[in-house]
Amino acid sequence: MRFAEMTAPEIQAIDRDRTLLVAPIAACEQHSQHLPVITDTVLVGAVADGLEAARPDRVVLLPVQWFGASEHHLPFGGTLTATLPTYEQMLVELLTPPLRDGFRRVLLLNGHGGNIDPLHVALRRLDAAFPEALLTGAAYWELAAEAIAALCDGPRTSMGHACEIETSMMMHLRPELVRADRIQDDPSPGVAPDGLFHAVDFGRRTERGAVGYPSFASAEKGRKMLEAIVPAVVAAADRVLALPLD
Amino acid sequence: MRFAEMTAPEIQAIDRDRTLLVAPIAACEQHSQHLPVITDTVLVGAVADGLEAARPDRVVLLPVQWFGASEHHLPFGGTLTATLPTYEQMLVELLTPPLRDGFRRVLLLNGHGGNIDPLHVALRRLDAAFPEALLTGAAYWELAAEAIAALCDGPRTSMGHACEIETSMMMHLRPELVRADRIQDDPSPGVAPDGLFHAVDFGRRTERGAVGYPSFASAEKGRKMLEAIVPAVVAAADRVLALPLD
Amino acid sequence: MRFAEMTAPEIQAIDRDRTLLVAPIAACEQHSQHLPVITDTVLVGAVADGLEAARPDRVVLLPVQWFGASEHHLPFGGTLTATLPTYEQMLVELLTPPLRDGFRRVLLLNGHGGNIDPLHVALRRLDAAFPEALLTGAAYWELAAEAIAALCDGPRTSMGHACEIETSMMMHLRPELVRADRIQDDPSPGVAPDGLFHAVDFGRRTERGAVGYPSFASAEKGRKMLEAIVPAVVAAADRVLALPLD
Amino acid sequence: MRFAEMTAPEIQAIDRDRTLLVAPIAACEQHSQHLPVITDTVLVGAVADGLEAARPDRVVLLPVQWFGASEHHLPFGGTLTATLPTYEQMLVELLTPPLRDGFRRVLLLNGHGGNIDPLHVALRRLDAAFPEALLTGAAYWELAAEAIAALCDGPRTSMGHACEIETSMMMHLRPELVRADRIQDDPSPGVAPDGLFHAVDFGRRTERGAVGYPSFASAEKGRKMLEAIVPAVVAAADRVLALPLD
Amino acid sequence: MRFAEMTAPEIQAIDRDRTLLVAPIAACEQHSQHLPVITDTVLVGAVADGLEAARPDRVVLLPVQWFGASEHHLPFGGTLTATLPTYEQMLVELLTPPLRDGFRRVLLLNGHGGNIDPLHVALRRLDAAFPEALLTGAAYWELAAEAIAALCDGPRTSMGHACEIETSMMMHLRPELVRADRIQDDPSPGVAPDGLFHAVDFGRRTERGAVGYPSFASAEKGRKMLEAIVPAVVAAADRVLALPLD
Amino acid sequence: MRFAEMTAPEIQAIDRDRTLLVAPIAACEQHSQHLPVITDTVLVGAVADGLEAARPDRVVLLPVQWFGASEHHLPFGGTLTATLPTYEQMLVELLTPPLRDGFRRVLLLNGHGGNIDPLHVALRRLDAAFPEALLTGAAYWELAAEAIAALCDGPRTSMGHACEIETSMMMHLRPELVRADRIQDDPSPGVAPDGLFHAVDFGRRTERGAVGYPSFASAEKGRKMLEAIVPAVVAAADRVLALPLD
Repeated sequence: MRFAEMTAPEIQAIDRDRTLLVAPIAACEQHSQHLPVITDTVLVGAVADGLEAARPDRVVLLPVQWFGASEHHLPFGGTLTATLPTYEQMLVELLTPPLRDGFRRVLLLNGHGGNIDPLHVALRRLDAAFPEALLTGAAYWELAAEAIAALCDGPRTSMGHACEIETSMMMHLRPELVRADRIQDDPSPGVAPDGLFHAVDFGRRTERGAVGYPSFASAEKGRKMLEAIVPAVVAAADRVLALPLD
Repeated sequence: MRFAEMTAPEIQAIDRDRTLLVAPIAACEQHSQHLPVITDTVLVGAVADGLEAARPDRVVLLPVQWFGASEHHLPFGGTLTATLPTYEQMLVELLTPPLRDGFRRVLLLNGHGGNIDPLHVALRRLDAAFPEALLTGAAYWELAAEAIAALCDGPRTSMGHACEIETSMMMHLRPELVRADRIQDDPSPGVAPDGLFHAVDFGRRTERGAVGYPSFASAEKGRKMLEAIVPAVVAAADRVLALPLD
Repeated sequence: MRFAEMTAPEIQAIDRDRTLLVAPIAACEQHSQHLPVITDTVLVGAVADGLEAARPDRVVLLPVQWFGASEHHLPFGGTLTATLPTYEQMLVELLTPPLRDGFRRVLLLNGHGGNIDPLHVALRRLDAAFPEALLTGAAYWELAAEAIAALCDGPRTSMGHACEIETSMMMHLRPELVRADRIQDDPSPGVAPDGLFHAVDFGRRTERGAVGYPSFASAEKGRKMLEAIVPAVVAAADRVLALPLD
Repeated sequence: MRFAEMTAPEIQAIDRDRTLLVAPIAACEQHSQHLPVITDTVLVGAVADGLEAARPDRVVLLPVQWFGASEHHLPFGGTLTATLPTYEQMLVELLTPPLRDGFRRVLLLNGHGGNIDPLHVALRRLDAAFPEALLTGAAYWELAAEAIAALCDGPRTSMGHACEIETSMMMHLRPELVRADRIQDDPSPGVAPDGLFHAVDFGRRTERGAVGYPSFASAEKGRKMLEAIVPAVVAAADRVLALPLD
Repeated sequence: MRFAEMTAPEIQAIDRDRTLLVAPIAACEQHSQHLPVITDTVLVGAVADGLEAARPDRVVLLPVQWFGASEHHLPFGGTLTATLPTYEQMLVELLTPPLRDGFRRVLLLNGHGGNIDPLHVALRRLDAAFPEALLTGAAYWELAAEAIAALCDGPRTSMGHACEIETSMMMHLRPELVRADRIQDDPSPGVAPDGLFHAVDFGRRTERGAVGYPSFASAEKGRKMLEAIVPAVVAAADRVLALPLD
Repeated sequence: MRFAEMTAPEIQAIDRDRTLLVAPIAACEQHSQHLPVITDTVLVGAVADGLEAARPDRVVLLPVQWFGASEHHLPFGGTLTATLPTYEQMLVELLTPPLRDGFRRVLLLNGHGGNIDPLHVALRRLDAAFPEALLTGAAYWELAAEAIAALCDGPRTSMGHACEIETSMMMHLRPELVRADRIQDDPSPGVAPDGLFHAVDFGRRTERGAVGYPSFASAEKGRKMLEAIVPAVVAAADRVLALPLD
């Protein structure tokens, strides 16, 4: 079910207990010199569409929210972003009406690394207000980490930024938006001291705004990745749907 | 130029003085029993696309923000909304990075009546911070009021809600999303005392969530309306582009 | 009834259903070179007094709030102002105790253009909290636009700022505060592109802080204007008093 | 100088270093059964007028702000109030434009006990932003405590609420607003443990909303009190005017 | 009872009506050149320990909060501080869970002058939410002012800052942290105009960050002071414990 | 160096570039039926003391902040907590003065799982304001995960709550505060769907407020754990100290 395309009475008629409300969140931010700024939104949108297509009567899919928490990308320009307090508040308010309306199973499906912290905070704040609901969240790549890694050829096998993974999937989904001639690896060993969280924007952390090896990307690999990610996300959704409600 | 589809270096290369940054804003909210909740977003998106197509090298089009100020629609369900203070803050933050990056001509292109007040407030707040910028906003129907009225056949010739105008344009743009068999007029004379602003939610103000006469709608009329609206919005954009900068 | 001059037990004894709570709001801000900064407060105060005098047992008149939303007047100095978020919050809090105490008919009677947007926002926020109340608002000149226009002699017949209308009424009400020798017209065609909302402060929008033609003002005309405005506001109040309560 | 009655250019011409900006603040709140809710505003207004009259070219008097911090009076009704965080913010914003415009000597002249804490907080917050300014505040009765006490005949000789002092001065200033037949003492020994600050609203702390002995009040005494208070406030203003600026 | 050292079930078993929840608050801020920045926390901690030792089954002692409101000490460095709005919010939130859990007698025991205003504000805000509770607060030196003054030998006999009183008690409690060779009096007559509250940071108000005469300090005197303060605080606690609950 | 025990001039003399500012943060919250609510504060305090002892001239240790983000523990009582927005703000403000004073290497040393998200958010917010600083953070157990796991005997070898690890270290550090007779394992498989973040408070997630197997705890094991953790934290601090500054 696609929330956006339904009428209000149709939405009101949905069985709250048997369905999972999926809210995809992403960003519109610099993605190095070869990917469009909307990349994260395209990717999580495709994953979410795949999920909804696989569970059309159990999933209620909200539209993708492309306005994310991207202040750390501002130094390269081409970035739209909320501040972190506002973004947390946005997520809290995004889910509040459906929770008041009785939805009880929620998945914040995330497509942008910078959203992870505020996603956690927002769900924790909502948990205090809606203890009867199952409030879950994940970045899609966290749910398919092994499958993604198995498909990578470059030196980095986990999600970076404008990396082999994102570039491959964009080559598959929106090839006309990839500037193939501008692809350059950005190993960005960076300054992060091992084991510590280090808050540092991409201007100081990377050469040109990427983290990873987009030169290894291919459309075919992107297709395979998406085909591996969607089932992993469906499986996660099934787990939330299988949980007992109080 | 479509901001979302460009890379950061391409965006950084845009001539700030000669271009107009257009930020379309809309809503995802109940639209009576025959229109999908995403209606406002579809409509302003089509208008914004028309504008960008007409001025491809003078307009920088941001993605449509579908999360709007719709608390007054909550009584019918099927509505996602920010509170008003959060929504104002979102609009302020949406435009802050591009303004810091040097964009100086801005048009908040609005597709939802409930966004008008916070749009004004947000632009006024931004004006205090960015006095060197030209900060403008309008709902698309305000820019084409006469042309729209001339095309209406029902008793109401100005924009309502899920009305003849919105329904016609949705029939033209997304006919598969219109539940034609559920169309019912909602004259909603309402309680509003003449000449006064009256804050009252749609649950008390309307019968079934609409304001207007969708029974007069047709796809053909919707096509004509869109064809009348786009040039009016282009003309408004041209006026902002023609203003001298300090 | 004048709220300020009553005791608490007398206020508690007021019949909430049969009375209208009127909250006049204004500003203390630059009014060009010939009017005192308190102009808006004087004018809306006179209108409100006229309303209360006409309906002494149906209207409960709060004191005029002179602290308004005037950031756009700061460039000329002589201006006191709240920021917009604070002003909205002030209006929400101003009306919250009476609404909790059972008042159900409210009119925010506005005397300053810059307050219109936050007035709307505040009433909408209150509507979400007090759906059983009738929450209305208007600037006094909106309720008497035709009558005012008919009395104007200069090229502008709608409310400007320190204009023919405001200057005339100040000449009538507080002639000793008008610096007649400093009166100068300020046609201020301004930069506003037709049909668009344009957020721009008075420092860039006007020559000397006015909008309009005060050289056409006279005390006699001011008296006539006030005599036209008060009945129009009384009629609006009567309309709110005539509405059924749930 | 009365700020409200001046034009913006006149205000801009004031010598900032030689003048004291005086901002009177008060409340609109229940005052037992015999005094009008506007009492605090009337009283501090009279004191402020006396100050301005005594130092017409050294004092710049703002209009009295009647909207105060009175949540502890809500249980008796007849009370308008900001919450404490909003009231602090209001005071900060009230003084910010004049401080940015160069005023350097400020006196927040207070007429309501409930405003004392937020007055302190607001001035401290402003001090962090405007270290070059002299930021002072006082309740008028703190500046004339001995003189007031000497004039009291009842058992309480310091300022209470709707007490001998306030009632006397209202009898002098606005006798028509005093319900003499409703005067009753309210000794209100209260629950406050000696030496401790005890936050407790007037509904639990008093019998009928007063603290003190209004039965001892007289108009003649009120006149004498006012005549004692004004010189004490003038002397305080002179002390601030005599301080060296950095 | 020491809250920190108890288990949750033990805390849940406490008789709420018969016990006093004591929350000591202090600061970590510059204390001139001879005292460590943790001074206020050490001192109020010792007082609180004395109170708990004297009433082990009637007092529930929270851990000392060392993060206070010290922006006015920032010019000398060595200072950690919340802003005033955040500090007020911290105090409100600190007490909210115990109040929700049924504690009804509260004493905010303060050890830092800069906390007094926000302490008042926080308790007033809590009173609006928890009218059934007895919400009290005091700085320890306010409860023992006479006894302290009687023990002072220098020209100032009330609490200053890094003064005879604080230095003496630190010499008694933590002699190894006192830099005796750096002790210098700081008479700091200051700029405060008599009778007025004057918001002014310590950088402009003092020579080296103290207010008072630490050269008169001695460990023996500090011991006597502490021995005088604790019984005074115990007596205040007893008064709160003796108050009837509604 | 122990910040708390130094004077302001001594702190001002510290070489900012060569030192690491360490801010330990913890909580005061329910720890099942056998551990005191202050457990997290005791443990991170011991780790921080060990770090400071190992690098006495390179580490500047702030006092432990025991007030944390523990709303998810409220259902068991015995819990003090800030809300998440306030806690983030507290952390931002805690570090702002030292960063303004020139400290450039920061480690937020965390001892409470619930603080991890707001720690990330706070450091990211600070990074936008202080890009010249190295802003890092970690929970102590993240830096010594392998060493800790190697010492565990029970089925869970990573940090839980009131678990084998925390109980062992408390038995070593504060044996008198451990209620050994109340120890019970709390396997709490919980409802968390594998791979997803699930916001759920401890009242629904655990039997009695613990996560793990405290029955395997011993003081000797606690000593070994602490002896393993401190060097790991020292090594992390060394890595931050070794990073080049811009």
